[in-house]
Amino acid sequence: MGEYVAPLKDMRFVLNNIVDLEGLSQIDTFSHAESDVVDAVLEEAAKLSGNVLSPLNWSGDQEKTSVKDGVVTSPAGWRDAYQQFAEGGWNGISAPEEFGGGGMPQAVSLATVEMWNSANLAFALCPLLTQGAIESLIAHGTEEQKNKYLEKLVTGEWTATMNLTESHAGSDVGALRTKAEPAEDGSWRISGQKIFITYGEHELAENIIHLVLARTPGSPAGTKGISLFIVPKYLVNDDGSLGERNDLQCVSLEEKIGIHASPTAVMSYGDNGGCIGYLIGGENNGMACMFTMMNNARLGVGTQGLAIAERAYQKAVEYALERRQGRAVGTPKGESAPIVRHADVRRMLMTMKSQIEAMRCLIYLNGESLDKGHNHPDPATRQSALDLAELLTPLSKAWSTDLGVELSSTAVQIHGGMGFIEETGVGQFYRDSRILPIYEGTNGIQALDLVGRKLALRGGEPVRNLLSEMAHYAEEMRGNDEGLNGIARQLDAAVTALKDATDWMYSNAPNDPNAAPAGATPYLRMFATTVGGYLLAKSAVKARTLLDAGDSDTDFLNGKITTARFFAAQILPQVAGLLGPVTEGADLLFAIDENNLVAS
Amino acid sequence: MGEYVAPLKDMRFVLNNIVDLEGLSQIDTFSHAESDVVDAVLEEAAKLSGNVLSPLNWSGDQEKTSVKDGVVTSPAGWRDAYQQFAEGGWNGISAPEEFGGGGMPQAVSLATVEMWNSANLAFALCPLLTQGAIESLIAHGTEEQKNKYLEKLVTGEWTATMNLTESHAGSDVGALRTKAEPAEDGSWRISGQKIFITYGEHELAENIIHLVLARTPGSPAGTKGISLFIVPKYLVNDDGSLGERNDLQCVSLEEKIGIHASPTAVMSYGDNGGCIGYLIGGENNGMACMFTMMNNARLGVGTQGLAIAERAYQKAVEYALERRQGRAVGTPKGESAPIVRHADVRRMLMTMKSQIEAMRCLIYLNGESLDKGHNHPDPATRQSALDLAELLTPLSKAWSTDLGVELSSTAVQIHGGMGFIEETGVGQFYRDSRILPIYEGTNGIQALDLVGRKLALRGGEPVRNLLSEMAHYAEEMRGNDEGLNGIARQLDAAVTALKDATDWMYSNAPNDPNAAPAGATPYLRMFATTVGGYLLAKSAVKARTLLDAGDSDTDFLNGKITTARFFAAQILPQVAGLLGPVTEGADLLFAIDENNLVAS
Repeated sequence: MGEYVAPLKDMRFVLNNIVDLEGLSQIDTFSHAESDVVDAVLEEAAKLSGNVLSPLNWSGDQEKTSVKDGVVTSPAGWRDAYQQFAEGGWNGISAPEEFGGGGMPQAVSLATVEMWNSANLAFALCPLLTQGAIESLIAHGTEEQKNKYLEKLVTGEWTATMNLTESHAGSDVGALRTKAEPAEDGSWRISGQKIFITYGEHELAENIIHLVLARTPGSPAGTKGISLFIVPKYLVNDDGSLGERNDLQCVSLEEKIGIHASPTAVMSYGDNGGCIGYLIGGENNGMACMFTMMNNARLGVGTQGLAIAERAYQKAVEYALERRQGRAVGTPKGESAPIVRHADVRRMLMTMKSQIEAMRCLIYLNGESLDKGHNHPDPATRQSALDLAELLTPLSKAWSTDLGVELSSTAVQIHGGMGFIEETGVGQFYRDSRILPIYEGTNGIQALDLVGRKLALRGGEPVRNLLSEMAHYAEEMRGNDEGLNGIARQLDAAVTALKDATDWMYSNAPNDPNAAPAGATPYLRMFATTVGGYLLAKSAVKARTLLDAGDSDTDFLNGKITTARFFAAQILPQVAGLLGPVTEGADLLFAIDENNLVAS
Repeated sequence: MGEYVAPLKDMRFVLNNIVDLEGLSQIDTFSHAESDVVDAVLEEAAKLSGNVLSPLNWSGDQEKTSVKDGVVTSPAGWRDAYQQFAEGGWNGISAPEEFGGGGMPQAVSLATVEMWNSANLAFALCPLLTQGAIESLIAHGTEEQKNKYLEKLVTGEWTATMNLTESHAGSDVGALRTKAEPAEDGSWRISGQKIFITYGEHELAENIIHLVLARTPGSPAGTKGISLFIVPKYLVNDDGSLGERNDLQCVSLEEKIGIHASPTAVMSYGDNGGCIGYLIGGENNGMACMFTMMNNARLGVGTQGLAIAERAYQKAVEYALERRQGRAVGTPKGESAPIVRHADVRRMLMTMKSQIEAMRCLIYLNGESLDKGHNHPDPATRQSALDLAELLTPLSKAWSTDLGVELSSTAVQIHGGMGFIEETGVGQFYRDSRILPIYEGTNGIQALDLVGRKLALRGGEPVRNLLSEMAHYAEEMRGNDEGLNGIARQLDAAVTALKDATDWMYSNAPNDPNAAPAGATPYLRMFATTVGGYLLAKSAVKARTLLDAGDSDTDFLNGKITTARFFAAQILPQVAGLLGPVTEGADLLFAIDENNLVAS
């Protein structure tokens, strides 16, 4: 099975032309993120992902993780791979240098996250959650907490988890019941059971820092009464050494459709009344802390969608170049053609390629917006960048993970009968990808976040800004050659439809509380597809400019233009097609009584 | 886990209002298919599927089949279930009465096929292939062959397989290399290896009749030089008793993403030079024989797509009624609502329901067209019915199986995190469904069949007839109430777009051999979606008529109208959105060199 090869050239193109990497490196925090340094970082990540993580992906799926007496065994080779990963400093690549991190912009670290996840999604989940915990500790931890926990998480000596879900509290986080009782020494005693805890238990690292949401006595109902606690697997002494085992354990691991090598644990806290936790971020402030972690994780999960689609694409291209069936147009009689020459196969490949490149633009831009939002010297720039990041996050998460599933399925299809055979390996992507639209907030929740919180953000200013930015771009790019004009026309049509849908949302949401939620999912699809088309249009214009300036990499740059044209012609028309569905309202959804949905 | 409950009421509605069951029963061949007989048949099938097959679905997936020394073991309970199935006479439900069959119209037998596959897709594959073999024997077998093999296949004492694929010959059947050498006694000696042979070996029945495609000496290259052979596992004596074991064996079983309980065999013929086969349908006439079998199988596989979507839908509704998360509009404070009350969940459910009902209309209508095509007394009616069946078959196969995958995925999503856990069971549908767009001709092959053979059929008459039938219907249904008018408007827009796309196909196919293939897949989607919308429009009109006539089943009939309106508002707009993509041509597909599809 061919191993993953990081698409460094595509990544660099996005970092230079969609993200303003040069501009980022002029911000103090990122002054070391110069072009050659970033190149070196990406090349090292490419080696680790291709040579170490990728070869463990399929074997990990087959071996799976197992648990016995609370001890989790990972597949062969995984412990070594994790050691190499940690020693490379990859856990803390975007953590501030003062805590031992690499201080890289998110835009760059997301490229590495993409690589880990393309190579081995089940593996990459572990650092993904640790990175989220690092951000949460930096934002909400006390100085003492930061000193105690951050360094080891940044080095990767320890890993971290996120504990939200309980069996009756999934999307409805506010329904959770895990308790935290104050102890005399200022710490807390945690008791309760959490489910779906990714890397909740393992032996890859020497300690696991669980971040656990729980209720303190007398706290208000719902999400307002939730607090966040640091609950280490091994307590940490003041000198940083490991102390006693805390009163928590992995009760069982789930048997899942995919990501078999990622241990998904049922965790029990305080079975013996002695589970020690430390409050972080203040009582009843748990949701804010969790959102810090979750926003990072949502963008990370979006990146997983991109990553698995890229891996599936590479595999599909490899197969399509190799496998010969039938004659394509122009194949001499008596010969058979590699299936890549059949128009329908090529359509599937271009559908994958163009959407993958659009996702990559969106996600790296989302990362850059966070970078600027947190680090730009100008407060107004910071604010507008943060607003954009907030607006893009549900798009990155939901669109990229829906496409992760759809395009993995396309890759299976390209393999024909072989695609359904486990040994071929492409089926693993189909199985692994299916969790992505679910965890870190289902894509339905993302759509509600978009039409609720994000459209309401700052009176709608960020949305209006982005819409008019896209409309102007479509306007301005006309007058170029016919290829770019075609893109401009399609983009303009999409932006117009999106604007109509947005206006409808603003007009109807106040009158009918179900109106916006009814259209939320196709609205998110419209929005993300339009932004994807816009960013690919930019790619095409940049490529055209480079070509006109004499850049000699003509195949690659013309490919960028072709890819953008394909997306404009084949994918963007979906947007106008969704305007009707978005603006239909909720009446028909509820017209059949819920008990008559299955006729009897 | 809730067991499958056959949607008898929905099925009967389609049989009475989309299919003309009454009319079919006036054809001699089907004179016994009267309403009460059909009711009894469907009710018995509902019992067997719900009580016997459905409970074995999940256990079969977990236990899988295994092979040792060429002997295949099926999961516990399967042998008994197969006995019951055979004893019920279900294998031969649509076979002619003269061979011991039930003589039911396809339209009715497809309803039973739907039930078996909803209940247990891995099980139902076995009779699906046997039914295809029965049709092929009836159409192409000699009297002697019919006498020897048909009865036992009809009773289900024996089963049958289809052997096309070899490792280098999948979609390109013409590339196969299995040989048939004439023997002195008039029989043939078969040698070669076939892969992906569904139920190629098992112990559910006492004999297996393999239908094997092979080349005779000196035969022309490609599909023109292929012949079909009857190759029994146990040779059959002249008195019908079983003779010696033939020289063929199951070498191994594939480990697949889904349908774990269905043995997918690598079959080796003639390892010891003594594999006896009997020519059927004449030398070099194998493709014609195989198409008889395959057309039946394609419609059967389409039915599998419908069936798995229905099963996944039932499971999703069950979960959505049970699972409580958060407050929906109108939920009292402090309470949580079943998720079925959230607009976004309801959207997913209605998206499933409306497309499932559209698929059912399409597939049963396709069955009725075959019934009329083969049995109507009027030759002109026979011809036009057969033409319609030919046209609808690729739509039934490809659209329904694509939707089978998409809607199974939607059902996983409705389950949230639980959907990804194997034990929940909905993941099995996601895994099982993935083979459907691949086997019996990939959906890409179906699309090529549509834009190639089917548009060219009889100078385009069947296509023109269907397009104008739909356009007239949209026209005529105006002037009704606002609900039906809305459907008419959307249907009209869809038919107009489909007509434009069809005109483009006719104009451009002659000039550029890649033009039609380039747009084939979205064209098929346009076509099937429009036909689905048309048939649901008919359902709505019929329901309206029944309501106006005082039918008291108002919830059910109003539900039909709502479902058709939902499909018109939410699904039909896709059609116009695909016109651009269909008519774009092939240029952009091939603009990037195949070796640059992955940038390096």
